[in-house]
Amino acid sequence: MIKPSQLKTDHEMMHRAIELARRGIMTTRPNPAVGCVISKNDTIIGEGWHQQAGEPHAEIHALKQAGAEAQGATAYVTLEPCSHMGRTPPCADALVDAGVARVVVAMHDPNPRVSGNGIKRLHEADIDVLVGVLEKSAEQLNPGFLSRMRHQRPFVTVKMASSLDGKTALSDGRSQWITGPHARSDVQYWRAQSDAILTGADTVLKDDPMLTVRESQWPKTRTLPEPLKQPIRIIIDSQNRVTDDAKIFESSAPVWLVRCEPGKPSRHAHCHEVIIDKADSGKVDLSALMTELAKREVNQVWTECGASLAAALIENGYCDRLMMYSSGQLLGDAARSLFDIEEPKSLDKAVRFKVTDRRQVGDDQRVIAVPQLIKG
Amino acid sequence: MIKPSQLKTDHEMMHRAIELARRGIMTTRPNPAVGCVISKNDTIIGEGWHQQAGEPHAEIHALKQAGAEAQGATAYVTLEPCSHMGRTPPCADALVDAGVARVVVAMHDPNPRVSGNGIKRLHEADIDVLVGVLEKSAEQLNPGFLSRMRHQRPFVTVKMASSLDGKTALSDGRSQWITGPHARSDVQYWRAQSDAILTGADTVLKDDPMLTVRESQWPKTRTLPEPLKQPIRIIIDSQNRVTDDAKIFESSAPVWLVRCEPGKPSRHAHCHEVIIDKADSGKVDLSALMTELAKREVNQVWTECGASLAAALIENGYCDRLMMYSSGQLLGDAARSLFDIEEPKSLDKAVRFKVTDRRQVGDDQRVIAVPQLIKG
Repeated sequence: MIKPSQLKTDHEMMHRAIELARRGIMTTRPNPAVGCVISKNDTIIGEGWHQQAGEPHAEIHALKQAGAEAQGATAYVTLEPCSHMGRTPPCADALVDAGVARVVVAMHDPNPRVSGNGIKRLHEADIDVLVGVLEKSAEQLNPGFLSRMRHQRPFVTVKMASSLDGKTALSDGRSQWITGPHARSDVQYWRAQSDAILTGADTVLKDDPMLTVRESQWPKTRTLPEPLKQPIRIIIDSQNRVTDDAKIFESSAPVWLVRCEPGKPSRHAHCHEVIIDKADSGKVDLSALMTELAKREVNQVWTECGASLAAALIENGYCDRLMMYSSGQLLGDAARSLFDIEEPKSLDKAVRFKVTDRRQVGDDQRVIAVPQLIKG
Repeated sequence: MIKPSQLKTDHEMMHRAIELARRGIMTTRPNPAVGCVISKNDTIIGEGWHQQAGEPHAEIHALKQAGAEAQGATAYVTLEPCSHMGRTPPCADALVDAGVARVVVAMHDPNPRVSGNGIKRLHEADIDVLVGVLEKSAEQLNPGFLSRMRHQRPFVTVKMASSLDGKTALSDGRSQWITGPHARSDVQYWRAQSDAILTGADTVLKDDPMLTVRESQWPKTRTLPEPLKQPIRIIIDSQNRVTDDAKIFESSAPVWLVRCEPGKPSRHAHCHEVIIDKADSGKVDLSALMTELAKREVNQVWTECGASLAAALIENGYCDRLMMYSSGQLLGDAARSLFDIEEPKSLDKAVRFKVTDRRQVGDDQRVIAVPQLIKG
């Protein structure tokens, strides 16, 4: 039985640990962002967060700061401490060695094969363990890592920009620019959180984009991550149409060409082919692609693509989040529509999303929506 | 020179007068909603608001409540007191007769031909007059009345309902229901504020709507107006296609059939033809229609129409406000688009709106937008 005053302290300390974890969301990949607070007599004596894969975990930073004071203290960790030797030694052992008396954990390790082992290790050392404090908030730190561990596929955000009447381009394809500079700035922030940006060969051939995180467009209200890691650019190129002269190769971040068969070897060292089986549609099998991306430790995917790839992701259940920017223009019925999805047989059979966030971004609106179960 | 403490009192009293005026926004038409507060030594001694055309104005109600105390008091009125004999005697005279010492007015009479006369009358009686307190808020009480007085046309709100991807119906026209019961409930509130609901013959023939304010669907969070006045239903019927068996005739509120030439006489006593010249398009001339509606004292128009009439209103500059409800469904590119407007020659030539309000209404989103000047 926990006293209310203890529960209050536990929530406050875990809240702080989540704040610390958040500092790593753009740099820890493929690892999860994790934060840790060590406290004694309601006073914080150590803080840490995981900064980059290969570097010490959150617990190690916090224990180092706490020093000998860690003896008899309470450790708050946003994720179950690891119990296996990875790139760094197990954190559960470090907590035991430091002599902490109690460990509060927000959520279990999402990998079902190792979940519970870290907590077991602490129990064996007679440490008092509490799991589940601010669990929902901790879950939100790492949607990509959790999706990869639990479902063996990345978490995919489909980004679209449209006019007020839901049009993405004029009928001849002109679309630069429908939304304004603030929306494009906001996009940099989301790109930076992604392991990879996914697009289609059509978009590369038509718009010739770079798809990098631009420091010059970084939103003034956000902290620029240090270091700024460029996402992998992934192009679905079922027909081997993308050539070496595409602008996307000008940045040194990796480009993955997803193809059904090997194409002409590229002269770019940072260009890699990923061969994926054809689906019945004659295009890359998205299911196989998602499995392959998870194997390659891709946690979060951000798409910048056209109506057709967006529709394929949605229809195959690979859109975990829609991020829709819309301007104030009206382009009329002849202009291009948002999604090339198949028309539902009736209104109640339509794919349905739930809006979870809506706000103004400069002169534009931004809506975030997540899939809902189909009725009927 | 006004003392800050006086200014503070003036704003507080006028705020109250605007609150009172708001009670009348669904019942005063074709008159404006007006509120009045009489105060003495910072204490309210009389309150009033205009309730219905033909009944006493706000000032008369407030003066009656104040009684002999009105002598030497301050009157706050949301609109310049009238100085002419209308359905009721002039309020400026009533204020003079009651012996008020000071009158604070939010805004001038919007009718340029009589604006200033009420204030002149008060000045002549040596009453201290201040104009412009909370003027912007007072303007918002009566968008329709102001539009009719200033521009000789009604204030038009174009209402549309669409899916998340901006589609109003499946390709075969099925559209019931895209948005949910809360959105339909919200619509009752806006219909009730309108003098008239405008639709097209296509909508009447296809959906056979009633277009009345439904008490049973009235939103629980809003006060039902007393009395509940049903708006006039106006159908643009350029080709005389609407017949007596349409469901819209089942309600006893007036139906106006806007036609270019008289049709077959209706058996319904509440059905009236409004003959308007043909425009070059072969359809009713919208400019002539707007002038005619203003002549008939129609202040506010709420449209429930299809993509084609909505587009015509927007393109001719007769959409003062867009009210867009959107659901979470995706209907795909084959489904019907929001507006049949002509495609702009380039993106910067597009008609542009500015979102002024966005919120959740049940499971749906509601966006209010107003026209912006076209760039370039």
